[in-house]
Parts: sequence; structure tokens; C-alpha cells
Amino acid sequence: MTSLLSERVARMKGYVPGEQPRAGTLLKLNTNENPYPPSPRVLRAVGEAASRDLRLYPSARADELREAAAQCYGCRPEQVLAANGSDEILALCLRACVSEGDVVAFPRPTYSLYPTLAEAAGASIVEVPALPGEIPAGLLEAGAAVTFLCSPNSPSGASLQLQEISRFAQAAGGLVVVDEAYVDFASHSALEILDRHSNLLVSRSFSKSFSMAGVRLGLGFAAPDLIEGLNRVKDSYNVSRLAAAAGVAALADYRWMRDSAAKVCATRDRTISRLRQAGWQAADSDANFFWLDCGGEGGLSVYRRLRDGGVLVRYFNTEELRGGVRVSVGTDEQMERFLAVLGV
Amino acid sequence: MTSLLSERVARMKGYVPGEQPRAGTLLKLNTNENPYPPSPRVLRAVGEAASRDLRLYPSARADELREAAAQCYGCRPEQVLAANGSDEILALCLRACVSEGDVVAFPRPTYSLYPTLAEAAGASIVEVPALPGEIPAGLLEAGAAVTFLCSPNSPSGASLQLQEISRFAQAAGGLVVVDEAYVDFASHSALEILDRHSNLLVSRSFSKSFSMAGVRLGLGFAAPDLIEGLNRVKDSYNVSRLAAAAGVAALADYRWMRDSAAKVCATRDRTISRLRQAGWQAADSDANFFWLDCGGEGGLSVYRRLRDGGVLVRYFNTEELRGGVRVSVGTDEQMERFLAVLGV
Repeated sequence: MTSLLSERVARMKGYVPGEQPRAGTLLKLNTNENPYPPSPRVLRAVGEAASRDLRLYPSARADELREAAAQCYGCRPEQVLAANGSDEILALCLRACVSEGDVVAFPRPTYSLYPTLAEAAGASIVEVPALPGEIPAGLLEAGAAVTFLCSPNSPSGASLQLQEISRFAQAAGGLVVVDEAYVDFASHSALEILDRHSNLLVSRSFSKSFSMAGVRLGLGFAAPDLIEGLNRVKDSYNVSRLAAAAGVAALADYRWMRDSAAKVCATRDRTISRLRQAGWQAADSDANFFWLDCGGEGGLSVYRRLRDGGVLVRYFNTEELRGGVRVSVGTDEQMERFLAVLGV
Repeated sequence: MTSLLSERVARMKGYVPGEQPRAGTLLKLNTNENPYPPSPRVLRAVGEAASRDLRLYPSARADELREAAAQCYGCRPEQVLAANGSDEILALCLRACVSEGDVVAFPRPTYSLYPTLAEAAGASIVEVPALPGEIPAGLLEAGAAVTFLCSPNSPSGASLQLQEISRFAQAAGGLVVVDEAYVDFASHSALEILDRHSNLLVSRSFSKSFSMAGVRLGLGFAAPDLIEGLNRVKDSYNVSRLAAAAGVAALADYRWMRDSAAKVCATRDRTISRLRQAGWQAADSDANFFWLDCGGEGGLSVYRRLRDGGVLVRYFNTEELRGGVRVSVGTDEQMERFLAVLGV
């Protein structure tokens, strides 16, 4: 039976997403969701799209959304790809640019989906240890068909400098994917240097800053002929009418997202300060989460302590990461609850 | 620049979906959409899901929907995979079971997405000419890692006999995917023989019979360990909260779908009779479309004639298919309009 699966898939474990408890009183600070709701315009747009027109296929390339994104981000619609979450953007990059045995490279630690995607593509994986905010020297030497740079990175929360990304893209022979899922909580975006590099793709998500994780919507920005190549390997109608309508409305109410992100950033910085005052080591962050070094106690113990106190954070059971936990930023009130469990 | 794409993707043309004119007065009989709206319960469920909870990720495997599907179709939740349209189910089958150079086989003519998916997977394609309703003898000899059997098939509208499918699955070494996108307009489903074959996957769509093409939702049914393998290669949260809620509501109002499908079937059979009475050769169909042989006039000319008359049907420019057009079944009124343009 398992012989039906290709060898590489038979060997795979698959990605383990953060827990999504069905209901209950646990405070979820584990999957970087936004504590604030989506714009009322988004909810209204979805309600309006819930019409008899759902019987019709959506636009195959989500034309209206791509036009709205081009206007919002200052590029052309041909430079935009819409997808069923930014995870699909990342997967499409590998599907279009990687043959079995090609190298997929990324600094580590980083988003733990990358190795899963690379395994599924039959790629050789090169992970290069990196300090927060660093593109490690060895990354270029990997000669990768696709390199993932997550900026701000998870779980560190550190951004890469544009100059560094630009230098890397200039020197790299393959595709460089800058995963900007968290960029709206940071100060700069690689979209600024997009036109300088034909091998650069910038991936964006509506899940975090736009509070739309449940909608599944992501955008990719790149040179038109790369976008065209990605279109060839995507499912024909990958963005639903509901998601497209939600995305157009979200971009039209960009201010709502900016306000929501600003509140999250203020709460984040306040929480980090409070932790430090109490003697904890919390890292600076450009994202809607931060890394909490748990010192001698270790990540698992703090994870359990928080869970017993009704707060769910993310613990990664790897050698590099088991010394701490990743904490998503909620509302001020929620972070008080988090701090209280820690005795801060 | 194009050197970023893998060789096989650089060579690919990509799937060409049927036209989706943005607006206007054209009667769309080209992409097999249902002329009737989705159940009011579906629209209500989507409206209710358009809440502040959209800030949260959906269930990674759409648990509630899988449970509803298991109950509705008489199997266990572990036998069900939910996806972003049944196109994603088909794509996942190749991603999990095909390595570069493996064979993907199918009778032809059939759904024109299969070769695109196979090319994207780097597979060798074996297409075996077949009569409507036939599994051709040569198909087994292909020794395929994955075989697609579309039943009812497009564009013929003909179903395969369960006994034939069963015999084929028994003899085949690889995965056999029965694509049942149109099965609710037919009389029998391979779900009846699912438990007999560990290498059988049945794919279902909400696009046609449930009038939910704009939602993007499909289901795959197979043995639990195959479903588990497919889960490893799917995107983490591939079904949105909106699509999952719509699917649960659609299954809860199964009767609505049955009534809608029954109306479509009655209109289909009436339209085919009328065409035959007027001397046209229209094929029997188990789907929500039928194949119209255009005789000496040819498919392109009839396509153009209909288009000039405001009716859009599907013309496939291949040697086998350019002699006719595929006509989706609308309401009685819409089919009168179609017949009138043809002078019937």
C-alpha cells in the first residue's frame, strides 16, 4: 500500500502546524494570529460575495485582486500572483523552479515549512546556521535553485537589511524568495528593490497583519515572466470568489491594517520591556511575535507552565530552539494574562 | 531569466481554462457551471463565517467537514481529504505518488488538465485512445504510477461501469484516481467499491452539482494510509474557514443538491431529444453537459455561430475534438435560447 507513495513522500513526516484547539478558554499565542478582527469592509465583502454567483468559477488569476494589489503596492498586475495563502506561493516557487536533486537552501532556524516543501519537491536541502538578521556567508555557496529568506524571520523576529538581500540576489544564480509574512510589523520591505532583480520574489500573506488567517490568501510579487511561469503550475482556479473579494476589500481599507499592526507593535514592545525588567531575555522583534529565551528552565518547562496557566505559546523541539518559546503578540489585556502566569 | 524555471516548466504551456467573461450578456454554457444557485444554507453559513474569527487559522485538515462528509457518504473521516477544489485533489495525487520519469496514464480524450498536471510533475504521459465509456485495453500496459479515469468523462458525458473500474484497479500496480466531478448527474459512484481497493481514490467536486464553483472545494476518498500520504504534501491550511463552512452546510442540505441535479438532468435529456429530432447528433450524457457532433460544419463554426448569437460553449482545438462542441446544461429557458440560435 505505502508503495503507492513515491519514495521521497514515503520518507516524509509532513509539516506539523501549531495546535488549533477547537474551542475552549486557552489563550492562543502560538500561531501568530492577529488579536484584532479583520476590517468590517472585509466581512461585508465576504457577505456580499455569498450570493448566487458562487455557482460561477472565479477569475482564474484573480484579476481584480491583482489589479488592486498592483495599485496598492505600486507595481503592475503582471508582477502579481494571488494564491491560497502565502504557503501556496512558496510551494509554487519550488514546483516551478526545482527539479529532483536540485538544491533548496535557507538560513536556520527559520520557518519550519521550508524543509517540508523542499522534501516534497525531491530537492536536496542545504540549511546554513545563521544569527538573527544575518544572511550567512555559506548560503551563496549552496548554489541553490531556490533560496528562502524569511524577513522578518521566525522565530527570531529579526529583519534582513535590504542591502544584504540585494547583494545576495545579485550574486545568486537561482530564485531568491523573500518571505515577508510578517513585514507589516517591520520597517522596510524588499518590494522596494523588486525591480532591480529578475530573480527575486517577494511573498506576502493576509493572515497576520490583515487578520485573515481563516481566509487563506497570499500574494507573490516578481518579474512578469517569472509570474507567468508560476501561473503554469498553479491550480487553475486557486483563489476563490470569497477570498478574492476579501482581499480587494482588505487592500481598500489599508488603514485598518496599519492601525491594527501599530497596536500590535506597541503591545509587543511594551511586553518585551516588562519581561526584561523582570530579568527575562526577550529578543527585539520586527514581527507580531517575539522569541523568549527561557534560560536554565528551558522552553518545554515554560511552555508547560504557560499552558497550565491557560496560555498556549509555540515550543519547537529542535536542538537550536528548545531553549526558548515563541510568543505571539495579543492585545494588552491578553499579554497581561501571559505576564501574570510567568509571575511578571 | 527563464533559466530560473526548471526545464519541464519552461517547456510547459499551462492549462487553458474555459473563458470567464467578466460581465456582459453572454450565456455561459462553456465551463459546466450549475445554472441554479447554491443552497440558501450555504450562503447563510458563509455569511456567518464572515466573522471576527476569520483572524484565526482554519482546522489544518478541515476536521468538521471531513466528519460531515464521512457521515454523508458512509465512510470514516480518515478516508477523507478536503482540498481547495478537486483540481487540488488531483494535483496532490501526483505530488505524492509520482517521481520524475514515472508514467501518468489516462484514456483520451478526457479532462485536459491531466496532461498539465503530469507535465508539472515531470511524469511521462501515456494517453490511450478510448471510446466513450470504455477503459481501453492498452491502459493497464502503461504501468502507470497514477492513472486518471474521469467518470462521467468530459467531454463525452459517458460513465464507466463499476465492474470495469474494479477490474482495472485490481490489476493495476499504481494509484487509480476516479475523477467523479460530474457523478451527481449520473447513476452510480465508485465510492461503492472504495473499500475493495487500497489503490483507489475517488475525487469529488462541489463546483458542479452543489453550485459552488466560486467557493473552491473538493473531497478525496481513499484508504486512510493513502490519505495520510496526501496530507504530507498538501499546504498546511488548504481549506479556508469560509469553504469549510460552505461545505458542511451543503452536505447538510443534500436534498437541495439532489433537486438541482435532477432539474439539470431533465433539461439535458429534453435538449438532447430536441436536437436529435432536428437532425443533430447529440451524445447521451451522464453529466451536466453533452457532446454535440457538428458534422460537416465542424466545431469551430458552430462555436462561432453560437457566440455570435450570445451563447458561449466550449470548443477544443484538438484533432479528436474539433468536430464538435461541449455544451453545458443551463435552465430550460437558457437551453431554449441555445436551441433558437441553432435554428432548432
